[in-house]
Amino acid sequence: MTSQLPATLGHIVAIGGAEDKTSDLEILKQVFALAPSGSDDVTVIATASSIPDQVLPEYEAAFTRLGARRVHALDIQDRRQAADPGNVELIERSGVIFFTGGDQLRLTTVLGGSATLKAIRDRLLAGAVVAGTSAGAAAMPGTMIYDGNAMDALRKGAVKMTSGLGFVDGLIIDSHFLERGRFTRLMEVGASNPEHLGVGLGEDAAVIIHPSQILEAIGPGHVILIDSRNLASSNITELSMGEAVAIEHMVMHALISGHGFDIEARRYLAPAPLKASLAETT
Amino acid sequence: MTSQLPATLGHIVAIGGAEDKTSDLEILKQVFALAPSGSDDVTVIATASSIPDQVLPEYEAAFTRLGARRVHALDIQDRRQAADPGNVELIERSGVIFFTGGDQLRLTTVLGGSATLKAIRDRLLAGAVVAGTSAGAAAMPGTMIYDGNAMDALRKGAVKMTSGLGFVDGLIIDSHFLERGRFTRLMEVGASNPEHLGVGLGEDAAVIIHPSQILEAIGPGHVILIDSRNLASSNITELSMGEAVAIEHMVMHALISGHGFDIEARRYLAPAPLKASLAETT
Repeated sequence: MTSQLPATLGHIVAIGGAEDKTSDLEILKQVFALAPSGSDDVTVIATASSIPDQVLPEYEAAFTRLGARRVHALDIQDRRQAADPGNVELIERSGVIFFTGGDQLRLTTVLGGSATLKAIRDRLLAGAVVAGTSAGAAAMPGTMIYDGNAMDALRKGAVKMTSGLGFVDGLIIDSHFLERGRFTRLMEVGASNPEHLGVGLGEDAAVIIHPSQILEAIGPGHVILIDSRNLASSNITELSMGEAVAIEHMVMHALISGHGFDIEARRYLAPAPLKASLAETT
Repeated sequence: MTSQLPATLGHIVAIGGAEDKTSDLEILKQVFALAPSGSDDVTVIATASSIPDQVLPEYEAAFTRLGARRVHALDIQDRRQAADPGNVELIERSGVIFFTGGDQLRLTTVLGGSATLKAIRDRLLAGAVVAGTSAGAAAMPGTMIYDGNAMDALRKGAVKMTSGLGFVDGLIIDSHFLERGRFTRLMEVGASNPEHLGVGLGEDAAVIIHPSQILEAIGPGHVILIDSRNLASSNITELSMGEAVAIEHMVMHALISGHGFDIEARRYLAPAPLKASLAETT
């Protein structure tokens, strides 16, 4: 599988939600540490959130504690604001661009095709970190899940998908994954197109997506990978909407902090091989 | 893997809970159809249930509708009743022995080592059907799960296990599997001993375990299989209790009605191969 996107120089950090924002800041600390040197401004984008006034101060406090020179809290709520050159300018100055949680469909409907989104992509290409939690993580790939009852999502059409923000290709990201039992969502997705790796992020867990397409798990929680590339068979094309999907052979891994995965080679990386892979490519 | 148990002549039906008891009776109909000819008595055992007076009449009505000559509702609540020759006699007359849901630990603590349990094993060997739903399904193998928060059960010691009723070996059964997002429970179980196949039964879904060790999925719901036999690595032995378990490589399948699995060969059976396998061995 080859990515359709230009190679990025910056890191992406996708967080499963409910990350620690007040204690050790284990994940946010690593997000901030990945910023290019001399680029200590952080932009936090609360477009996904329905409670931006509550969420933005929490991240302002956390990134300030971590040493951010300035934290720009962007409460972009509509497409006019997404086109605002003032917002673009703040992003251009930032070494970290962070997306809060909320509704990922708000992210794409407000930011899709906007000057703000273009500026973020440019910053990523130039080496900045793009990070997001919950909805902000789910929206990162070229295709995203935006809805689907986890009770039994393994029924044709149960999982709702659309185009994402397109920062990374080759994977589909789901958040709150273990806590909300979302395995069936990534299974339906894998049956409908086995090419993309399913990445299920637990709460207070994250993956760093290195520019070399190596995933590195961080944080106290779990990262579940569902690899459908060698799917042997599925009945999904024969079904009507709502009917139960059969699946023969998907491979699953559970990563904890310090473990990784080579997306391209579909290879699990225990701590030593992960370090070697990252040393090789940086 | 070779089973430690004597070969059975009868069928086992493990149901994931919440099976239809009043409409088409899709699963219960198949349970009753597997009874040996001329053996039309059904025994329903409500030992697991805390509401036997509510549960027993539902199954009495369902099996009567299906053509049972007599339905014996056994509300065995303690070990004295489990030793009662009157109950043993009713079981000896039955072609179907059915366990209701509830708490599987009540099943083992009340029935373990009892004359009633011995009589049920003998009936299974002689060709009777042993069926159970929810707790009644979970308790069937030699080892069972009896507790473990599904929120993130992929932490050492989160899943509580003990000896089950021992009707079948080589698998671990979990119920309400998709509806309660219990994937992490069978993943922890697979990491701690990859030998046994994880069978995750959805609601209104079941597996028939044929005497030939072929699984056959029935009912409208899903049966998820988690096969850890080729587990590549796990950190579980290095962890303290409560720490996150890493897993490299488990294989997952989703079966729907009419699909099956060869436990011994670890082979997925689509409808045509399933029919061929069953024809071969009966």
